[in-house]
Amino acid sequence: MSSMVVKLVPLEVGFLRKHEVKRLNPRQGSGCVLSVRASVASKTLEYPKTNREQLDKDVRIGVLGASGYTGAEIVRLLANHPHFGITLMTADRKAGQSFGSVFPHLFTQDLPDMVAVKDADFSSVDAVFCCLPHGTTQEIIKGLPKGLKVVDLSADFRLRNINEYEEWYGQPHKAPELQKEAVYGLTEVLRYEIQNARLVANPGCYPTSIQLPLVPLIKAHLIETKNIIIDAKSGVSGAGRGAKEANLYTEIAEGLHSYGITKHRHVPEIEQGLSDASNSEVTVSFTPHLMPMSRGMQSTIYVEMAPGVNVNDLYDYLNSTYQDEEFVRLLEKGVVPHTQHVRGSNYCLMNVFQDRILGRAIIISVIDNLVKGASGQALQNLNLMMGYPENTGLQYQPLFP
Amino acid sequence: MSSMVVKLVPLEVGFLRKHEVKRLNPRQGSGCVLSVRASVASKTLEYPKTNREQLDKDVRIGVLGASGYTGAEIVRLLANHPHFGITLMTADRKAGQSFGSVFPHLFTQDLPDMVAVKDADFSSVDAVFCCLPHGTTQEIIKGLPKGLKVVDLSADFRLRNINEYEEWYGQPHKAPELQKEAVYGLTEVLRYEIQNARLVANPGCYPTSIQLPLVPLIKAHLIETKNIIIDAKSGVSGAGRGAKEANLYTEIAEGLHSYGITKHRHVPEIEQGLSDASNSEVTVSFTPHLMPMSRGMQSTIYVEMAPGVNVNDLYDYLNSTYQDEEFVRLLEKGVVPHTQHVRGSNYCLMNVFQDRILGRAIIISVIDNLVKGASGQALQNLNLMMGYPENTGLQYQPLFP
Amino acid sequence: MSSMVVKLVPLEVGFLRKHEVKRLNPRQGSGCVLSVRASVASKTLEYPKTNREQLDKDVRIGVLGASGYTGAEIVRLLANHPHFGITLMTADRKAGQSFGSVFPHLFTQDLPDMVAVKDADFSSVDAVFCCLPHGTTQEIIKGLPKGLKVVDLSADFRLRNINEYEEWYGQPHKAPELQKEAVYGLTEVLRYEIQNARLVANPGCYPTSIQLPLVPLIKAHLIETKNIIIDAKSGVSGAGRGAKEANLYTEIAEGLHSYGITKHRHVPEIEQGLSDASNSEVTVSFTPHLMPMSRGMQSTIYVEMAPGVNVNDLYDYLNSTYQDEEFVRLLEKGVVPHTQHVRGSNYCLMNVFQDRILGRAIIISVIDNLVKGASGQALQNLNLMMGYPENTGLQYQPLFP
Amino acid sequence: MSSMVVKLVPLEVGFLRKHEVKRLNPRQGSGCVLSVRASVASKTLEYPKTNREQLDKDVRIGVLGASGYTGAEIVRLLANHPHFGITLMTADRKAGQSFGSVFPHLFTQDLPDMVAVKDADFSSVDAVFCCLPHGTTQEIIKGLPKGLKVVDLSADFRLRNINEYEEWYGQPHKAPELQKEAVYGLTEVLRYEIQNARLVANPGCYPTSIQLPLVPLIKAHLIETKNIIIDAKSGVSGAGRGAKEANLYTEIAEGLHSYGITKHRHVPEIEQGLSDASNSEVTVSFTPHLMPMSRGMQSTIYVEMAPGVNVNDLYDYLNSTYQDEEFVRLLEKGVVPHTQHVRGSNYCLMNVFQDRILGRAIIISVIDNLVKGASGQALQNLNLMMGYPENTGLQYQPLFP
Repeated sequence: MSSMVVKLVPLEVGFLRKHEVKRLNPRQGSGCVLSVRASVASKTLEYPKTNREQLDKDVRIGVLGASGYTGAEIVRLLANHPHFGITLMTADRKAGQSFGSVFPHLFTQDLPDMVAVKDADFSSVDAVFCCLPHGTTQEIIKGLPKGLKVVDLSADFRLRNINEYEEWYGQPHKAPELQKEAVYGLTEVLRYEIQNARLVANPGCYPTSIQLPLVPLIKAHLIETKNIIIDAKSGVSGAGRGAKEANLYTEIAEGLHSYGITKHRHVPEIEQGLSDASNSEVTVSFTPHLMPMSRGMQSTIYVEMAPGVNVNDLYDYLNSTYQDEEFVRLLEKGVVPHTQHVRGSNYCLMNVFQDRILGRAIIISVIDNLVKGASGQALQNLNLMMGYPENTGLQYQPLFP
Repeated sequence: MSSMVVKLVPLEVGFLRKHEVKRLNPRQGSGCVLSVRASVASKTLEYPKTNREQLDKDVRIGVLGASGYTGAEIVRLLANHPHFGITLMTADRKAGQSFGSVFPHLFTQDLPDMVAVKDADFSSVDAVFCCLPHGTTQEIIKGLPKGLKVVDLSADFRLRNINEYEEWYGQPHKAPELQKEAVYGLTEVLRYEIQNARLVANPGCYPTSIQLPLVPLIKAHLIETKNIIIDAKSGVSGAGRGAKEANLYTEIAEGLHSYGITKHRHVPEIEQGLSDASNSEVTVSFTPHLMPMSRGMQSTIYVEMAPGVNVNDLYDYLNSTYQDEEFVRLLEKGVVPHTQHVRGSNYCLMNVFQDRILGRAIIISVIDNLVKGASGQALQNLNLMMGYPENTGLQYQPLFP
Repeated sequence: MSSMVVKLVPLEVGFLRKHEVKRLNPRQGSGCVLSVRASVASKTLEYPKTNREQLDKDVRIGVLGASGYTGAEIVRLLANHPHFGITLMTADRKAGQSFGSVFPHLFTQDLPDMVAVKDADFSSVDAVFCCLPHGTTQEIIKGLPKGLKVVDLSADFRLRNINEYEEWYGQPHKAPELQKEAVYGLTEVLRYEIQNARLVANPGCYPTSIQLPLVPLIKAHLIETKNIIIDAKSGVSGAGRGAKEANLYTEIAEGLHSYGITKHRHVPEIEQGLSDASNSEVTVSFTPHLMPMSRGMQSTIYVEMAPGVNVNDLYDYLNSTYQDEEFVRLLEKGVVPHTQHVRGSNYCLMNVFQDRILGRAIIISVIDNLVKGASGQALQNLNLMMGYPENTGLQYQPLFP
Repeated sequence: MSSMVVKLVPLEVGFLRKHEVKRLNPRQGSGCVLSVRASVASKTLEYPKTNREQLDKDVRIGVLGASGYTGAEIVRLLANHPHFGITLMTADRKAGQSFGSVFPHLFTQDLPDMVAVKDADFSSVDAVFCCLPHGTTQEIIKGLPKGLKVVDLSADFRLRNINEYEEWYGQPHKAPELQKEAVYGLTEVLRYEIQNARLVANPGCYPTSIQLPLVPLIKAHLIETKNIIIDAKSGVSGAGRGAKEANLYTEIAEGLHSYGITKHRHVPEIEQGLSDASNSEVTVSFTPHLMPMSRGMQSTIYVEMAPGVNVNDLYDYLNSTYQDEEFVRLLEKGVVPHTQHVRGSNYCLMNVFQDRILGRAIIISVIDNLVKGASGQALQNLNLMMGYPENTGLQYQPLFP
């Protein structure tokens, strides 16, 4: 049919096909990462795949638990990564399906079909992103070849204290030996350790947004560690893609509510990080709120400053800490961070404000919970672990509006 | 044309007209307010107006500044009010227009066209809702006939201290005599004074959601008044209908941000109310956040309990305070208030939670900012001022989803 | 604790309780429906329920399948109904639970706990709203006492042709005898039949929005019945409260898509209604779209006018048809219906526009899919069936913004 | 591989590789790990700018009217473009301001401050994107140096017939000579002409989504050109960033409506394109709808197929037309395009469906109105005009959820 129609109704000159244009193109193949695929595509006549050369990349990547939002976000970020190519994807309940059938927005990517994790051939990969639910992750990672680099996006290796893990997650830790090896992946804080790690426990979204401003201020003894009050707001994608009544559009749109008051599982992770920074036990007030939006997270943090410290001291110290960072940015004085301004990007924007109550300050930090709060930071970490510049593949600017 | 077509194409039997049905109706006109219009409509053949008998109501109402969202909300609430009928509407920039052309969702209501406030005939009204912007309101109310009952939804009469007014609003108070007369309209707290008032300053939305839980707890000395930290979240309708870039759909959807940090004009109103309750000067930390939703407001309030007091004491005292109230409701222990659960209604839902930090509690209250936070409470107040049950016309259940 | 605190910390004068106010109230109990509860409440000291006098109402109502959105909407609408009181609620999977635990926004209503339908005592009710899924409804209604009035919101009795039912729903009709008795509940079109019906098949949301404008125009031979093209848009609540991945907030927000192209089960219902009107078999093009909103439905209908007919003829005829209707409204010429302008109300707004293509017209109608498209029209029908004015309890104005 | 790339594409000194960084950077923080920008920053100690080497890029770009959404989108897309660097930005009302103050989400970009267009130095640029409002654009482009390549995103050069321009835009065309030179920038249809153009009139968003499927089908005589009915749905960003009451969050959220019925200014552009394709005058029915979402556009197109043609013929022909295209994609049979699946990307997804009415088909196409519908296609065109692969800088995958 197709050829018949082409004969009967020849295309106008104006309807030049892409591969014909390519031959006319004097500057073709100019070597930039983003244009490589065009020249590949111009050599073939089959349906073009934007990312077909996965197998030719330097580092072969596996994505375990690829059928959730963090898995999809890994794929989106790697689409323009010059060195990492996905060669393995697992998803137990969707085994045998193409990734594009599960996430149609990425159907143009040339990816392996998903397999059950028990059927995965790990000899084909150099590193894995593990996007599995907590609880099952410890055993799976324990079973992986020891040579693999692993970034685990679950909570299973974030808590050093395995008793605390059991307390908050309701089951004993199943890989205590690995736990000792795991490095906590808060990139800007533990960059050196991450560079040398084999297994990185990627931080939770709330803990990332909270520790990035608080850890340096606590280390520098600029704020008190008692009565730290964190009012956090998150988009719904943090809850994942599981079908739950509570996360239906109709239940979420045009309204908000607190949840997990005092009981959210990110509490011990936050307190571990802040306790490390202060060399003392820190207990925080942490109240998350579910927002009518898909992506984005803000932590509004109410703190008491140390005696003699003022808000300019906090500002200056955060500035000195982060002035060379690409992804963690202190805004100009008085400028309020908006979650819209980081959507789809790996940035963490923050600022600090004088409170009306003497001696108190308000710290605000925003991230995209799926990027800096999950898959973006995971990629940042794996870049480091594999010896690449940590921003490789991560320089997406925020999508607004 | 219409009659011609009817002749040419007679209606089937099944296409019985409403007024014909009425005659068949054995229980017609059973006296309830909600069915009055049907029987009226059945006697006429003109285009039916749901609320045509405004002039026959007991109390003639004027709405000043009717072209904003709080004005529209007054109209919506009065649509089923058995005693209040709107006989005057003003809107300077929309003078001469019909209300239905400005708010098409209310076009079925039989209302007077809008006039400029300077052209208004106040002899035709018994009471007014004043929905004008702050700053202009004092002079206009000063010019009204003294016999009129007034509920002012602006901020112009909320602050007893006229110096404080000048400090926060940047201009001298223009009606200091009236200020002395004005009663603050937080219904459940000042019900008796409101009943006997002529001029009521209707509270702001944030102050309503904050004072309803805090005032009784402070009066009862159950919480400390230092370090009260309020993280408040509001829908966009609170910003009104003015065309501002910052409130465009594209700027608001799928994101959130803090605003007016330490400088929001509701601060002195909140502090006035809490200071009254404690008989001492209270300074609060108050940080409002703009949410991607049209209606709804939550205040998440972090407090320190008085020595020896625990969270059950707070719960029990709020319960004893509000157990007979129709609109202010303490939820069952552990149940989290959602803003969706008050949308379109005059309810304030609240609850109190133990914090992780010893001695602290978290109080959450939610309202619809346009109803209990504005027009609903205004109507509740005018009901009282005119001697009607305060819930008259206000028993709309929340619209969810 | 409560009484102790009251003793220890006496309330200020300003903190007058509601029941005290009532005694001061000179106009109390003026007999209006909306204020009845206030006077009841004033006599009791227990926790007030807005709608406690269900048992005293004239008509005892059962709601079968009360745990879905249409069930909740029935409860919302009946909250202010002067004659209908809910005395039975069923929900098989939530049997034993209170309605307020399933729909917290209605927790103030005094309602019976939900029971399994098999345990329901139908001797306690005069009429039922049946909000069950299609497929199970026929047998349940077949088993009800014959004296009960029934409005069925499912699709199970909408198609007169039981073969067509089997074809579209994939199972044989289980109550063909009842099918003969069932009256299709498109109120404005079949008002007389509905008044005399025992079992009403309440129309689907799409069919309601489409038939209200098209049926009269087809009956009057003003439009052609071939090539009627309907592009319909619906909010997500039409999909119900079941937990489905496709209806998660994250999947729906900020995007739209067509679904059920040519295969939506409302097709045979629409075609049945239009075929009846034209006395010939009508096939339509019907493409529904899922919108990022909870409530609201628009049908944009592209039609060819009959020879010699122009758009003014359509306008005039719709005007003559609906000018006496309370809920179906033809807007002024040129005014575009918005779904926001019917949210929460029982209105259907419509208008008709000249197309650019000669001889064609564009008809737009909007409804709230949960009110006029479901529970509102169901109540309108039961009002008629029970001999009350059909607008009883339905005069809610739209909620905007 | 890494060293090979270094040979083929020599890195700047600033492009320190990760393994070098490690040696230089024994602990964290001070040095920086972040490719070009970071290492530059580490030498200067200034605040790091992600894209500071604009001046070193091959092609110097001006953005006229940079303060609107399409201007911001150009900046976002160019952030990772290897050859285009922005050296001039104009915005008359925001002259003197930094771009980051107007669009904080792009504050990390190193961009020139905005100037008034009259003060712009065009000797510093090789090409411009013109994002000005229609009406003012013709004169400004007329005044530009003749050597500049221009992609105009306004409507000012889209209509070849200047009388038609005057009729729809209410003012005479001010640059009729330039109009003759302008090439219509529908890339996949007019690629060859665009490659050789100096002035490209970038298509409107609706016309892009409509012509991409219809032009080839009309050229191939597979569909009738009479009675083409287009029901189009757009996100709000298409209305721009101007402060208008109608586009406030509160007016748009949770609702939809038709607008510009038969009168939308994209009508003559659509009809011009379809008339060209058919060599006859085509009149379409076009009804746009405003959706509660920021980005995204769907055109649902109802067509009559030519005699003897079936829906598989349409599918096969679209497949043969677009199978080599990177950005225009025909989905697998039966798969429905969603606007969410193109958000933030330059893709146009389409598919074709059999209608219920014999001989008719339904065509659906979706784009992101700000990318393929505006700035993305503009960049695609300028890539071609400057001799680069057309996908350069455009390979962003869609952002979902």
